[in-house]
Amino acid sequence: MKLIRFGEAGKEKPGIIDKDGNYLDCSGFQEDWNEAFFESNGLDRLDAWLEANIEGLSKIPDNSRIGSPVARPSKIVCIGLNYRKHAIESGMAVPEIPIIFMKATSSLSGPFDPIYIPKNSTATDWEVELAVVIGKRAKYVSKENAMDYVAGYCLHNDVSERDFQLRHGGQWVKGKSADNFAPLGPFLATKFEIPDPHNLRLWLKLNGETIQDSNTSDLVFDIPYLIEHLSQYMTLLPGDVISTGTPAGVGLGFDPPKYLTEGDVVELGIDGLGVSRQVAMKDPEA
Amino acid sequence: MKLIRFGEAGKEKPGIIDKDGNYLDCSGFQEDWNEAFFESNGLDRLDAWLEANIEGLSKIPDNSRIGSPVARPSKIVCIGLNYRKHAIESGMAVPEIPIIFMKATSSLSGPFDPIYIPKNSTATDWEVELAVVIGKRAKYVSKENAMDYVAGYCLHNDVSERDFQLRHGGQWVKGKSADNFAPLGPFLATKFEIPDPHNLRLWLKLNGETIQDSNTSDLVFDIPYLIEHLSQYMTLLPGDVISTGTPAGVGLGFDPPKYLTEGDVVELGIDGLGVSRQVAMKDPEA
Repeated sequence: MKLIRFGEAGKEKPGIIDKDGNYLDCSGFQEDWNEAFFESNGLDRLDAWLEANIEGLSKIPDNSRIGSPVARPSKIVCIGLNYRKHAIESGMAVPEIPIIFMKATSSLSGPFDPIYIPKNSTATDWEVELAVVIGKRAKYVSKENAMDYVAGYCLHNDVSERDFQLRHGGQWVKGKSADNFAPLGPFLATKFEIPDPHNLRLWLKLNGETIQDSNTSDLVFDIPYLIEHLSQYMTLLPGDVISTGTPAGVGLGFDPPKYLTEGDVVELGIDGLGVSRQVAMKDPEA
Repeated sequence: MKLIRFGEAGKEKPGIIDKDGNYLDCSGFQEDWNEAFFESNGLDRLDAWLEANIEGLSKIPDNSRIGSPVARPSKIVCIGLNYRKHAIESGMAVPEIPIIFMKATSSLSGPFDPIYIPKNSTATDWEVELAVVIGKRAKYVSKENAMDYVAGYCLHNDVSERDFQLRHGGQWVKGKSADNFAPLGPFLATKFEIPDPHNLRLWLKLNGETIQDSNTSDLVFDIPYLIEHLSQYMTLLPGDVISTGTPAGVGLGFDPPKYLTEGDVVELGIDGLGVSRQVAMKDPEA
């Protein structure tokens, strides 16, 4: 099953993509794809509801905005330096235990929304990542049964401001949290759609040129390990997003570094998780 | 006005403390003290509603559990090393710009709930802090009008696991985010109740002995500066919590360090914001 959300930012409606690629409106299910939905066995309930109702669903209007496929979660936890070559290009050691940091959930945006270059930014950068969406409350989970806690997967661009992240006082959250810094989607694929999340090509193009191109088989710490690790430190709630890190090829790694300016086009994709596209522009509120 | 929430964890009901110190049930107002409430001018609407309805409100049941005075916010942002002597006791430099980090919002708990010592923890520590609750969306705010964005203030214990924070891989969020690591309250005092938030004594006792005792006049970065600074990096949403940092006297600062063990009693208070009390116990899920 593939979940989408569509419509005006902040007022998205729930939908799905069917087997023929049609985008169908699931407003009739009367729930959003949020914590309460995942917590209450929503994927199974939706499946049963679709069985009975899919014939009557209307297609979403042409040119609908596509939003994040999950509603604002309790947290977006990101993993730092989780691909060997990216650690090296960042001038940092390959970590021996996962580095984790948070992104403000207010940064969540749709997969085709603009990337807003924040006020005073000169170092806005891209990071294609595989994001995992949690399906049920996870606390002190062991890696052996960690996959039971996964609802599905999404494509994520962990947009990052490198000066804010690395030169403005210590903790990375400063460079990860601006509005529209977390384009998620275009859809959530439930875990049954992605039999092996550890063998997916992921790539990113800047203005048509491929500059990130790797495979999730290169993850330093795999998904079960990450869920075990994170759930020792904090309780993961249904709908929470874990972004598993980016491979080499970010702007910070170029010599000299290369950052987004107005009009730059970023396209990214992961096998089975679709393609997203963002155009960089000045934050209209800046 | 003083806001409270009471009842079972996760199902709290809204209430207030009236001028005579009575705890009154505001379930009839049919809202929670959450983002939607603050966003929609809730404090003014509640004020008007109380004008008409306060006589008919019932007292909350004796022995009610008191919860966090605000519902789970979109984020809890904390300021690191924001009192000079605490930076020194932590063996770190007094920062030149604010250090910020996140606490998982799943750590939020009531002011009299236990502190759970997490699995594998040997360094669970206390931090009395003044927390600011945001009243309206704040983005690129200047310090001159930053106080317009404040709804009120709460007492907060920014419970911290020092090994998780400092020795488990880089970013502080790991040591700040366990369940019950954010006892907030007992109440939110609206800003009109606290004419000068920069001159409040704050203190903490461990097993009856006062070990933190300072004043918010010693803050390195004051509240308007913090709101200006934070709102350059992320959008603060109504109901968001900013915890302004702790003064000297945390367990990490003792020689040798002194950390919580089962049965330890932590009491803390801030002028005008009440007193909270937590007993340390092993996490029952550990």
